[in-house]
Amino acid sequence: MAAEQAAQKPQERLSAWLAGDMAAVNLLIRDRMASEHAPRIPEVTAHLIEAGGKRLRPLLTLAAARLCGYDGPFHVHLAATVEFIHTATLLHDDVVDESSQRRGRPTANLLWDNKSSVLVGDYLFARSFQLMTETGNMRVLAILSNASAVIAEGEVLQLTAAQDLRTDESVYLKVVRGKTAALFSAATEVGGVIAGASAEQVKALYEYGDALGIAFQIVDDLLDYGGTDAVIGKNTGDDFRERKLTLPVIKAVAVATAEERAFWERVIEKGDQRDGDLDRARAIMAGHGTMEAARQDALMWAAKARTALDHLPAHELRDMLADLADYVVERIS
Amino acid sequence: MAAEQAAQKPQERLSAWLAGDMAAVNLLIRDRMASEHAPRIPEVTAHLIEAGGKRLRPLLTLAAARLCGYDGPFHVHLAATVEFIHTATLLHDDVVDESSQRRGRPTANLLWDNKSSVLVGDYLFARSFQLMTETGNMRVLAILSNASAVIAEGEVLQLTAAQDLRTDESVYLKVVRGKTAALFSAATEVGGVIAGASAEQVKALYEYGDALGIAFQIVDDLLDYGGTDAVIGKNTGDDFRERKLTLPVIKAVAVATAEERAFWERVIEKGDQRDGDLDRARAIMAGHGTMEAARQDALMWAAKARTALDHLPAHELRDMLADLADYVVERIS
Repeated sequence: MAAEQAAQKPQERLSAWLAGDMAAVNLLIRDRMASEHAPRIPEVTAHLIEAGGKRLRPLLTLAAARLCGYDGPFHVHLAATVEFIHTATLLHDDVVDESSQRRGRPTANLLWDNKSSVLVGDYLFARSFQLMTETGNMRVLAILSNASAVIAEGEVLQLTAAQDLRTDESVYLKVVRGKTAALFSAATEVGGVIAGASAEQVKALYEYGDALGIAFQIVDDLLDYGGTDAVIGKNTGDDFRERKLTLPVIKAVAVATAEERAFWERVIEKGDQRDGDLDRARAIMAGHGTMEAARQDALMWAAKARTALDHLPAHELRDMLADLADYVVERIS
Repeated sequence: MAAEQAAQKPQERLSAWLAGDMAAVNLLIRDRMASEHAPRIPEVTAHLIEAGGKRLRPLLTLAAARLCGYDGPFHVHLAATVEFIHTATLLHDDVVDESSQRRGRPTANLLWDNKSSVLVGDYLFARSFQLMTETGNMRVLAILSNASAVIAEGEVLQLTAAQDLRTDESVYLKVVRGKTAALFSAATEVGGVIAGASAEQVKALYEYGDALGIAFQIVDDLLDYGGTDAVIGKNTGDDFRERKLTLPVIKAVAVATAEERAFWERVIEKGDQRDGDLDRARAIMAGHGTMEAARQDALMWAAKARTALDHLPAHELRDMLADLADYVVERIS
């Protein structure tokens, strides 16, 4: 039994432990994504929400709350809130990135249109604020509304930093905090706050979510250059085509030879991309070891996440969260 | 002096009476629309917010609060919240409608791109939730988050109702409540709530805002068929080109001859629009008097708004709000 359990992925163990709570979250999500007047809304959201998303963010909220001894009803509202915010940002991201595939299926903007994606995203944002308001807890409202602002700010920053070779690792970190880590850290932090955890524990939960989110996003960016369509359900090379400055590219630009620099200027700044350019980008990064260097950064953030958990009570869920931090980076090794 | 004052438009009298409060609102808006990390954000918002918008919604909040005797600081936060929600919906509307002009200037989606409009809109939504959270008042949070959901739902409904000749007046009313009246009524209602007004007064403020918003939108829809570019700073005929079923069209479709029905099917359902079709649409509506019938509906809503004010204390601001209800419809006569 122990060996069998160890063979399970940490996220599956979290899902199993929190199965009852997660069932309540799924019920609430299904209830609140409905719309009496506009049937287009549940059509679009069902496409996304039932597409087998990993529900990672709501699991983080539920785990944080339970780990801190919460036994009230509102961690379910907060978990659904976090999933709604996430789904809304996915809908808007697909419009912004002009994506055609998400989780191995056509995106909503392709199946319906950009208009529906924008407006249904807005609807889910509004629903998420309704849900969090129902908790009656001003502190979680402040945390989640701040996180929403950081997310939007990070997305705008990514938009203006794309195609700009001057983008450095500090800008990258701000973008990553916005697009991923802000919601991870808010998800864990509100779990602690609703449970009435101590200031030190709440801070530790924030730091865990922040570091986990950064590790997660670095790995996602690496997979975009190294994964396969089948594995990640997303077109490899998307970031390259969208001329995004992700960590392995930023590191490669920093040490580029004159010839390599000319290559990056052509494909990223000018957007003049030809057959074989993606392979050449991979070869240049391999030559400088920047994929491996980015993986080391991800490992460092994962270790930071694990360390933050030391401030939390000993608990099965704490061990699963620690394993999750390691697992996030193992995806690429 | 009395004659001079009477000659001023009601909104100008509200602006003058509330000048001190409005200055505080403008300062707060300027402060909160900034972004340390992403300069694109204030560029886009300044373009919209400083474009001489009428600031009608924040004036409604300030007037409602003052009229109910409020002397705290938070009506300013709520007024800024309402303007941020409004500006965010304008940014997203322009993407959805593919508009090229707003308030007589090129739209943000044309000056920058759709991506910036989507993401900066999201940023303003998030900022609006931060602002309302700062009031610490759970009831205003519930009212404004509900209004946001109704707004988004109304926009989706409008999207699916467009091009559909079965759209009737009851669907139109839902769309109009979503796109306009929900924010008007939330604006006035939260003004009363923050002032600690009685349940009866809060209900009256809600009803005033709701009826004013419906009258306002009916008039806006009429102007789209009858105004001039110079007067309304918007391209006349936009609704026709976007195949929207607005009130005068819905009334004309309901009484159409077989030949007229074929015309509406071609231009609205099939979207096959040719030179002279907009003029023909106007002629058909004039023939059935549906523009005038819609104007009568607007007058009825304006009267309803005025009547709701009877439940509120006698006050100079109350008189201005009453005059505003009449003025909104006078725009087209």
